[in-house]
Amino acid sequence: MATYPLDRTAYLLVDPYNDFLSEGGKVYPFIEAIATEVGLLDNLRKLDRALRAHGVAVFIVPHRRWEPGDYEDWRFPSPTHRKIMARHNFARGEWGGEWHPEFAPKPGDTVVQEHWGASGFANTDLDLRLKQKGITHVIIAGLLANTCIEATGRYATELGYHVTLVRDATAAMQHDMMHAAHELNGPTYAHAIVTTGELIASL
Amino acid sequence: MATYPLDRTAYLLVDPYNDFLSEGGKVYPFIEAIATEVGLLDNLRKLDRALRAHGVAVFIVPHRRWEPGDYEDWRFPSPTHRKIMARHNFARGEWGGEWHPEFAPKPGDTVVQEHWGASGFANTDLDLRLKQKGITHVIIAGLLANTCIEATGRYATELGYHVTLVRDATAAMQHDMMHAAHELNGPTYAHAIVTTGELIASL
Amino acid sequence: MATYPLDRTAYLLVDPYNDFLSEGGKVYPFIEAIATEVGLLDNLRKLDRALRAHGVAVFIVPHRRWEPGDYEDWRFPSPTHRKIMARHNFARGEWGGEWHPEFAPKPGDTVVQEHWGASGFANTDLDLRLKQKGITHVIIAGLLANTCIEATGRYATELGYHVTLVRDATAAMQHDMMHAAHELNGPTYAHAIVTTGELIASL
Amino acid sequence: MATYPLDRTAYLLVDPYNDFLSEGGKVYPFIEAIATEVGLLDNLRKLDRALRAHGVAVFIVPHRRWEPGDYEDWRFPSPTHRKIMARHNFARGEWGGEWHPEFAPKPGDTVVQEHWGASGFANTDLDLRLKQKGITHVIIAGLLANTCIEATGRYATELGYHVTLVRDATAAMQHDMMHAAHELNGPTYAHAIVTTGELIASL
Repeated sequence: MATYPLDRTAYLLVDPYNDFLSEGGKVYPFIEAIATEVGLLDNLRKLDRALRAHGVAVFIVPHRRWEPGDYEDWRFPSPTHRKIMARHNFARGEWGGEWHPEFAPKPGDTVVQEHWGASGFANTDLDLRLKQKGITHVIIAGLLANTCIEATGRYATELGYHVTLVRDATAAMQHDMMHAAHELNGPTYAHAIVTTGELIASL
Repeated sequence: MATYPLDRTAYLLVDPYNDFLSEGGKVYPFIEAIATEVGLLDNLRKLDRALRAHGVAVFIVPHRRWEPGDYEDWRFPSPTHRKIMARHNFARGEWGGEWHPEFAPKPGDTVVQEHWGASGFANTDLDLRLKQKGITHVIIAGLLANTCIEATGRYATELGYHVTLVRDATAAMQHDMMHAAHELNGPTYAHAIVTTGELIASL
Repeated sequence: MATYPLDRTAYLLVDPYNDFLSEGGKVYPFIEAIATEVGLLDNLRKLDRALRAHGVAVFIVPHRRWEPGDYEDWRFPSPTHRKIMARHNFARGEWGGEWHPEFAPKPGDTVVQEHWGASGFANTDLDLRLKQKGITHVIIAGLLANTCIEATGRYATELGYHVTLVRDATAAMQHDMMHAAHELNGPTYAHAIVTTGELIASL
Repeated sequence: MATYPLDRTAYLLVDPYNDFLSEGGKVYPFIEAIATEVGLLDNLRKLDRALRAHGVAVFIVPHRRWEPGDYEDWRFPSPTHRKIMARHNFARGEWGGEWHPEFAPKPGDTVVQEHWGASGFANTDLDLRLKQKGITHVIIAGLLANTCIEATGRYATELGYHVTLVRDATAAMQHDMMHAAHELNGPTYAHAIVTTGELIASL
């Protein structure tokens, strides 16, 4: 079990948008089954409470909010970019692109630049802002387990951070994606893969 | 089906070491079943022949060859680093860390810096050397489907490249890892996921 | 003299804020002498007109707009960060942090993420967005010659771009800083260092 | 005056090759006057002794050793690349590309990947290897003040490190280059610019 130097640990909350986390959100129906099964919302609440109570720094790691024109003149939009072009996920100025009200940034939180792809580190200021707070350990939660969470975690390891995944504070569209994230790929790069309960107990 | 501007396309061959590709290699026993099933060696031979015949630039993307002391004074070695510390995979100066004789670099190939983690781009010169050759499309093959290949592919997309995975020119330790790489995660970031035969037919 | 493939060339306009370019701006008094001497404003107007007329992509590369709290909890703010903390340069929501009205982004321009330090590439999406437009050549103008322009240019070369500096479409606080930027350091990394007139003549 | 947490401080010695530091080296004649004036060799000896005695981690940050073919098929070699193509500086396998015998790596030192441009961080593993040793402060010495040292220092600041330049443990080809490095540009990004004597006194 990892132990956390609390003043050097950050909680990275990835993409806490209504589109992902709220009933009526554009992506929510696709993850609802697994989110319900693992208790996603309740675990995010518990994490939020416990980590803040222990003084852990909170970083909000948001996906690019879709704007008209996005990706349309890009040379090589990825399949995910194409989906977003069609569905307008996390549209800027719309409810879906607003923070889920329980997980909006609080005073003192760091909101990093929006990421265009899947990794919260790629083409953003996340690494710099973690370094400027002296962070060495990151605990990553939010959506989706096998896309943004996994990509952010893989980058964190390449950048030299200690990486923790929280298996029931994330979700995915299919069970095999959860399995891939936590049983197949996570164990190759993550330093700890724990439940919300285990994490809180270890603080 | 993607089409390839041949003078702007590179073939990234990841980790063509004896330890991965040759009988007697340290990792080979763990991938042998799937390598045999997909015809890995024969497909790598076909790709190598066809891509070179079409003038596609070949980049060798090698994992750090283990040396005594590696990772021992690192703050946060990953689970993969710990495995390598125990097993001495791709040891520098040993047969396992030599190129498989059929896939050694040829004159004119680019051998990029060794990567410490899973992505061939992280902490190496791969992006610069691709840019300096004017490369915009990368075709990624080699080992392992869900670790170095997937990490290299994810980074390539974040960096703005067009990314192709070749599903039978790679292997993994388990079937569900191949499934995760090509059916679950690849489709979120890769622009094309093809067989060796399909790729060659499209050149 | 360099020639420019116009569909692969971008004009990077760095920090076109009132604080830098307008009378009454916080930094303007410190650069006014040299700006006047080289004809900065008029040259930026000429560049803007000529490059847009030739269809060159325009990228606005903005410095972080100061907000209350900025840098205060950073571990190692640089001397430049400390100056900004004291002076509130480019304050968000104030006139000084607004675009100079003649150089505000126009429809179709790309406004990249704000940079925290001196390089427009560091901790931002500039490289990705250039790549996604297929850009290979960058023409860099704006402020200051020996800080943000030089840092952006040095990074551009390290990233594999063709780099042009425009010696009279920038300014600095002292003459020796202009000399350092264009006669000492620029010649080590920039592919072309030209006047506005020379650049326009070469399009 | 900065103080240094010795277990989190690294000494980055940039390009300690015979071509730079030894009589008979290819670049040495161009820097000899200033090197002699500031006492470069003797100061590097003092730094080496003092920093090792205090247990500071030593990182060797080497320029790419020239090999036949280097840069010849590059799209945009920089002016510095072109010079190296003509002069074969730091040729691999030749005396000029060997370490100056007094500054060769010692057991326990970290030798990072060779850099292709000017910054020791660009396209190398320097950031990762510093992070994996828990380094937060870098003291940069070696050659040249306004090229590799300055570029490495600028990147270090963008990456969130505390940066110290040592004004008499470097050299340049001209006095105005030293002035630019330490009086004009360094003061914008470096957290400390000191003499060898001042640095040693502060340990």
